[in-house]
Amino acid sequence: MKTFDLIAVLDFETTGLNPQLDHPTEVAVNVYGKGGLVAKYSSMIMLPEGVEVSEFITNLTGLTTEKVNSEGAEKVEVQENLIDLLVHDKFKTLVVGHNINFDLGFLKHHFDIEPENFMCTRTIEILTTPHFNASLQEAHKRHFLEGMEQTHRAGDDIQMTWELFCKQAEIHGEHGFSFFLNKVVDMPDRELVYTPHNAIVLDFSQKYYSSRYVEQLREKIESMEEDVEKLSCLEGAGVDNWEGYSYAMEMMEEEN
Amino acid sequence: MKTFDLIAVLDFETTGLNPQLDHPTEVAVNVYGKGGLVAKYSSMIMLPEGVEVSEFITNLTGLTTEKVNSEGAEKVEVQENLIDLLVHDKFKTLVVGHNINFDLGFLKHHFDIEPENFMCTRTIEILTTPHFNASLQEAHKRHFLEGMEQTHRAGDDIQMTWELFCKQAEIHGEHGFSFFLNKVVDMPDRELVYTPHNAIVLDFSQKYYSSRYVEQLREKIESMEEDVEKLSCLEGAGVDNWEGYSYAMEMMEEEN
Repeated sequence: MKTFDLIAVLDFETTGLNPQLDHPTEVAVNVYGKGGLVAKYSSMIMLPEGVEVSEFITNLTGLTTEKVNSEGAEKVEVQENLIDLLVHDKFKTLVVGHNINFDLGFLKHHFDIEPENFMCTRTIEILTTPHFNASLQEAHKRHFLEGMEQTHRAGDDIQMTWELFCKQAEIHGEHGFSFFLNKVVDMPDRELVYTPHNAIVLDFSQKYYSSRYVEQLREKIESMEEDVEKLSCLEGAGVDNWEGYSYAMEMMEEEN
Repeated sequence: MKTFDLIAVLDFETTGLNPQLDHPTEVAVNVYGKGGLVAKYSSMIMLPEGVEVSEFITNLTGLTTEKVNSEGAEKVEVQENLIDLLVHDKFKTLVVGHNINFDLGFLKHHFDIEPENFMCTRTIEILTTPHFNASLQEAHKRHFLEGMEQTHRAGDDIQMTWELFCKQAEIHGEHGFSFFLNKVVDMPDRELVYTPHNAIVLDFSQKYYSSRYVEQLREKIESMEEDVEKLSCLEGAGVDNWEGYSYAMEMMEEEN
């Protein structure tokens, strides 16, 4: 992206998905200039009193409430570092992340920072190969022979994201690539939870449905089919001549 | 699109959707250079013996079998003109159309021409505003206050397509716009019938479903719900104590 002086790859680990209800537990930022890496920052972040990391999140990231609170920095200190890394008057900075709207949500709600320019490696995967799984792990695996296992630790995840981003830029070319600037997708299989400042939302969720939803409808139909068949057999055997039939029909009237 | 010397806007009217089974009835091409329109061509095309324009198509386009055969040119003559307009060694040409894969299918199967570079105004609409109707008529109406009614005559349609293309280029910018080069979409609500030479297919049809399909499943569920409720009332009234019940259950066994 020649129009940018700096590219900052950003990732948050958090206690949950909602930036208004959940809290960041870890952040990592790598900043790249024309010549390569110019700054590298990662830190755990102390939680507010009473907030705990759930077992699910601990299993995913290896981070516990104790670890985060004993090794983590205070939020205000993290904020200062993030401003230094992401907010520049002199240098035009592009913030990059995998599902960046998630990270931008935490950046806004917890650190009051709203970048002007960003690019989402997940959006790029979805728009260029919509039939594939767009997770960081799977997208990285498709593009690199020597895959990395995703650790869900911020420092590792930004490394994978940066490699993916460079590969995407190579595939789609300097020019075509700029289409993705500030674009985020709203897909039927994953709702957009946070709409970043300056975002252009491509909303596929209004006209299309996810496989998962269609699967649920099909399962419902399958489970109903047996009942429909049973009724048809009862009717075939003359159930309307049964003495309880009129009582059953009254029940049905009442229910409607 | 500064990387191209010429932009050729192309539209076919045909007897149907399938380039291998159906026939072109009319074609129009406008060629634009850096300074504006440089060539303009449109012609009706004679049909092979025995091929007729259906009533549906006549109602859509106003073209009849008689009109096409009496006023149209022979296919071989049209082919010569199309080669002159679309195939250049010296000038790099971008072929543009609304749902261009359709037109490129007829261009290949009936005139043996396969452009190297093309762009589809319908694909651009779908990828940039996926929640809107992407038909030429509706897309044109969204972008221009003074809407044109689509006549489905080739000469008029390329005029609307050119206006739409220029507007899209203005909105998405010279750079970002080049992402759409040679891209076509395969969407759940409209299957890709023909894949052009050099095309990059963005296949949304494997993971997503159309509203229409989901509507059908929902209607099926609705129609089954009454039967399910009736069975539940019969069971509530003790139908399994009815003398015909075991006969009905045997019927069900047999059917399975």
